[in-house]
Amino acid sequence: MEFGITFKGFVSPARARNLVRQAEEAGFTHCWFYDSHVLWRECYPAIAMCMEHTKKMKFGPCVTNPNSRDWSVAASLFASLALQSEGRFVVGLGRGDSAMRVMGKKPAPLARVAEFTQKVKAMVRGDEVQYGESPEAVKFPWANGYELPVHIGAYGPMALKTAGEVGDGVILQIAEPALVKWFADQAIAAGKEAGRDMSNFQVIAAAPAFTGDMDKCLEATKWFPAMVGNHVADIVEKYGAHSGLVPESLTAYIEQRKGYDYSKHGQSDNPYLDFITDDIVESFCVLGGIDAHIAKLLELEKAGTTQFNIYLDNGDEERIIADYGNKIIPHFTR
Amino acid sequence: MEFGITFKGFVSPARARNLVRQAEEAGFTHCWFYDSHVLWRECYPAIAMCMEHTKKMKFGPCVTNPNSRDWSVAASLFASLALQSEGRFVVGLGRGDSAMRVMGKKPAPLARVAEFTQKVKAMVRGDEVQYGESPEAVKFPWANGYELPVHIGAYGPMALKTAGEVGDGVILQIAEPALVKWFADQAIAAGKEAGRDMSNFQVIAAAPAFTGDMDKCLEATKWFPAMVGNHVADIVEKYGAHSGLVPESLTAYIEQRKGYDYSKHGQSDNPYLDFITDDIVESFCVLGGIDAHIAKLLELEKAGTTQFNIYLDNGDEERIIADYGNKIIPHFTR
Amino acid sequence: MEFGITFKGFVSPARARNLVRQAEEAGFTHCWFYDSHVLWRECYPAIAMCMEHTKKMKFGPCVTNPNSRDWSVAASLFASLALQSEGRFVVGLGRGDSAMRVMGKKPAPLARVAEFTQKVKAMVRGDEVQYGESPEAVKFPWANGYELPVHIGAYGPMALKTAGEVGDGVILQIAEPALVKWFADQAIAAGKEAGRDMSNFQVIAAAPAFTGDMDKCLEATKWFPAMVGNHVADIVEKYGAHSGLVPESLTAYIEQRKGYDYSKHGQSDNPYLDFITDDIVESFCVLGGIDAHIAKLLELEKAGTTQFNIYLDNGDEERIIADYGNKIIPHFTR
Amino acid sequence: MEFGITFKGFVSPARARNLVRQAEEAGFTHCWFYDSHVLWRECYPAIAMCMEHTKKMKFGPCVTNPNSRDWSVAASLFASLALQSEGRFVVGLGRGDSAMRVMGKKPAPLARVAEFTQKVKAMVRGDEVQYGESPEAVKFPWANGYELPVHIGAYGPMALKTAGEVGDGVILQIAEPALVKWFADQAIAAGKEAGRDMSNFQVIAAAPAFTGDMDKCLEATKWFPAMVGNHVADIVEKYGAHSGLVPESLTAYIEQRKGYDYSKHGQSDNPYLDFITDDIVESFCVLGGIDAHIAKLLELEKAGTTQFNIYLDNGDEERIIADYGNKIIPHFTR
Repeated sequence: MEFGITFKGFVSPARARNLVRQAEEAGFTHCWFYDSHVLWRECYPAIAMCMEHTKKMKFGPCVTNPNSRDWSVAASLFASLALQSEGRFVVGLGRGDSAMRVMGKKPAPLARVAEFTQKVKAMVRGDEVQYGESPEAVKFPWANGYELPVHIGAYGPMALKTAGEVGDGVILQIAEPALVKWFADQAIAAGKEAGRDMSNFQVIAAAPAFTGDMDKCLEATKWFPAMVGNHVADIVEKYGAHSGLVPESLTAYIEQRKGYDYSKHGQSDNPYLDFITDDIVESFCVLGGIDAHIAKLLELEKAGTTQFNIYLDNGDEERIIADYGNKIIPHFTR
Repeated sequence: MEFGITFKGFVSPARARNLVRQAEEAGFTHCWFYDSHVLWRECYPAIAMCMEHTKKMKFGPCVTNPNSRDWSVAASLFASLALQSEGRFVVGLGRGDSAMRVMGKKPAPLARVAEFTQKVKAMVRGDEVQYGESPEAVKFPWANGYELPVHIGAYGPMALKTAGEVGDGVILQIAEPALVKWFADQAIAAGKEAGRDMSNFQVIAAAPAFTGDMDKCLEATKWFPAMVGNHVADIVEKYGAHSGLVPESLTAYIEQRKGYDYSKHGQSDNPYLDFITDDIVESFCVLGGIDAHIAKLLELEKAGTTQFNIYLDNGDEERIIADYGNKIIPHFTR
Repeated sequence: MEFGITFKGFVSPARARNLVRQAEEAGFTHCWFYDSHVLWRECYPAIAMCMEHTKKMKFGPCVTNPNSRDWSVAASLFASLALQSEGRFVVGLGRGDSAMRVMGKKPAPLARVAEFTQKVKAMVRGDEVQYGESPEAVKFPWANGYELPVHIGAYGPMALKTAGEVGDGVILQIAEPALVKWFADQAIAAGKEAGRDMSNFQVIAAAPAFTGDMDKCLEATKWFPAMVGNHVADIVEKYGAHSGLVPESLTAYIEQRKGYDYSKHGQSDNPYLDFITDDIVESFCVLGGIDAHIAKLLELEKAGTTQFNIYLDNGDEERIIADYGNKIIPHFTR
Repeated sequence: MEFGITFKGFVSPARARNLVRQAEEAGFTHCWFYDSHVLWRECYPAIAMCMEHTKKMKFGPCVTNPNSRDWSVAASLFASLALQSEGRFVVGLGRGDSAMRVMGKKPAPLARVAEFTQKVKAMVRGDEVQYGESPEAVKFPWANGYELPVHIGAYGPMALKTAGEVGDGVILQIAEPALVKWFADQAIAAGKEAGRDMSNFQVIAAAPAFTGDMDKCLEATKWFPAMVGNHVADIVEKYGAHSGLVPESLTAYIEQRKGYDYSKHGQSDNPYLDFITDDIVESFCVLGGIDAHIAKLLELEKAGTTQFNIYLDNGDEERIIADYGNKIIPHFTR
């Protein structure tokens, strides 16, 4: 299992430079940034900056979407970052949640996510590509054949199907082993159904991790179930909470859900957090002492997780990276 | 007078890192990149990269346009680069020439250039801004009040008027002192007419510079008149070559102009270069021995130029930067 | 009060690069390295390396001695580091303890410490200097007039006198406020006696700091009283434990002292630690919760300390630097 | 054949950082610094600095000597630089010419050069070593087994014998193919005589290289024959100019030699340059057009040279590095 960290964008540039250096030295292989350009800073300048301070670490948005940028601009951006870093750029892709809603726009349909995946990968590779917004086909004369990995963020059956059919991996914003397995299995099954070799398909579990006293852990991370519950609500509305496709543990939580303030997206002072129980927080995140982290991560690995991606920005970032580097990651390096 | 360099995007990342370091040490204050994301790599990752290798140098596109990116994405990108570099980001802006045409699109109208200037500057500053494509007004909660300088590329009377009315400066892609003065005066007059204080208005002359033997200089830079003649053709079509607004020296050249292959935009092997005379090349660029450079640059300074911006990528870049740093820039540092 | 960190040399280069970046961002102004070239790596390559990763932080040995290097070599080294870092090099100087004893040599007499201080400062400045080992006077044609600060490590009355008479400051390896004041007052009095202006004289208290649970703090730092007791033993032998010059709290401790294994100098597994009581450890170091740190540091500041210099290498370095940067240093920045 | 550059120490730190980056990108594998700590800055801080700006380039003094530093200090310095750069440190070693003479001291005897080579290599490796100045044997507990390459600068028969018997290579400060072969053959023969495998023995020819107009080349580099003639004079005094061991071309030059001002060591304004003919300059250096460089370097390679090491600091450094990277080194990369 590999390890990643995710910045939401609040971190200062000076601190980000240091944290990625520390994380690389500690054994983390990936660094992700939220891509939601109104709520936070545009993430690609930060990615390019961090690339200059690392040697092996891979970077990518977690997640971008097909609607924020013209596809040839997105592809040129991605290919340039890959070329500049000698292949250290990957993509996390979703339908566009906060990035769209904060502007009063709708997330993209899944068919558009799938088409974006395929056409952007082709443009990055150097193929001539025709896509909707461009009167003429686009081909980058400077492309160097890079095969851009695109991992698709998903929870719902149709999104998981898309991830399995066109993605190089799936990003699951949750660290609950049973749910990770249930989600990942759907994606992998869809890929096999479509005739793909799924042996290298990536399963990325993304959630906050916090080491130490449980009360402090809970306080620091309870914003997370509130934020990702929003995605789950979309599933339930479409497929029905008691259809058998959605586990009871999740639907119980959803029923308590009241609302969500997008201007506080991803922040720990989000006011609509009352309905989150401690059980839900523990279930969604990786919390507690070092041994509890190792135990849960072994479960996640057994459930098929290929990368555990820590959502940082809950405080004590240097300490958590050091704890993972010194005491946790060594148990998983093979 | 300040000095800048412009990369077209062909330069390798490893070499770009070294050249900006050398240029900063040599006394250059600005580094510009073509923004034409299909023909060359996306320039903003390269800008973010180069910022990590410099301390005082300012960076920007030369030139971007209002149509390649959603305006909130462009504003978030610009504000993030400014924040990340502690204020070392500026913008060069045009209507969108090669970036649009290569995709079969049209350049933006000047009214759109003006609106982009004002709304992007406002978003970068942190104001709440309503613009066409966004259903809801956009406001960056993380903005830090940065006043983004926007310099507008122009030749034609209307574009120069726009530069003077809304820009912080004008970019003139030519190093012919009389033309620089004629263009700059139009922009400054328009600004004064609109009631603006033009005392800090920037006049940026952008053109190739090459030191040494004249034959080699001419061979290395004759692609430039061909490329910029394209813009001049737009003026002539709209205002008439013999209207009195356009100098004869320029219209004579235009009449010989046959065509232009956009897939070779900015390259020295552009096949449609036959109609360019040596006189035109010398007139448009800064060529020859060190003394000839100093003499022409003093004329450009007298004509109101506040920055001479060298288009690199003609070979011998390290030598030209060293020549400017050791022998030319010291004559202009005050 | 300013803050510093000290590496003993065990830290890997990759980690040192990151820790100095983190420390600079956290508000630490100085970074020191043990200079004991057999027991640990030579510190000056590490200092030059760390300078490339910082902008304002100052670096120096803590402490060097007059016997390890030819004086012109030492002066050239120091002047080169100062020039290379644009003035970010300072010196901590002692008689040569572990660096000499591990080779079977004796520490230098104080008169030699004083002469080294004055002649090295002169060579660094660019003066022509005659000194013992060199047949001809030495003058660096490339010197740029840098005034090298030399801070002298001392405990005993004569060493404190030397620090006050020729040093720019005194380094006291202890964080006990009453002792710091007693030591510093002796140095300052000696300087005044010699007619010097002592208003900018630096008083640097150097000791381990560890935040968190007291049991863990004590375990991690009890090597320190053992190490510095060695110096105190020299004082007692020379001046007498009950002469009135040495406080009772210190002499009580010394009487229990049995021996010291130089091959474990500065390590936490030093076997001769049994005689160190918890009280002595708390008294010599800064330990416990954040509030306890702030309270003791305010006392140290009141006692005249101008810099608190943390001896790192006790584990949890990233966390301790972050705790100081986030919660402690802001109370002292004026 | 590999390529190196040598700085004398006059170059500013900011420029050195850029030049080593440019040189690494251009294909140079080694960067050397004069080690003469009074005449120029101490070179090891500059080496440590440059290591932070390069990835593969190797660094070393050209040349150090056994008398400037205590051997355990020298060994700790070398081992630390090797460890810090992951094995990118090598040593050039001589008897101590300008570094000793400027202080009124004598160069070391060859037996001391040989002993220094063996004992420093052993200390760097981690062996316990007893040497003259240290009462007790020295062993670095932190050594990592690095096998330090030591290349010995030589001209005279005895020095070449020492280089062959104990060195990993020989440094010949001259780019005259016949002389290089004559010198190198002596070293290799001595190594074989001593029973060593000489198949990886390095032959490093070190001299100025200057591209372009021959008059300018001669003017910029004529300081070099004057400087190295000093070493040759030592040979002649000891072995006799007409003994048959020294070629006539060299002795003719020596007879014209008048004197040498050490305060101008290595500078182009050395006043005692009158006796240097253009033929001698051309013979000792690599000068002229690109083709002339390639032709002479092919001869040097044929003569057994494994590295051509350019003495920089004659002006136009960026251009010369670019010329070598673009037009010359590609002919020798195999």
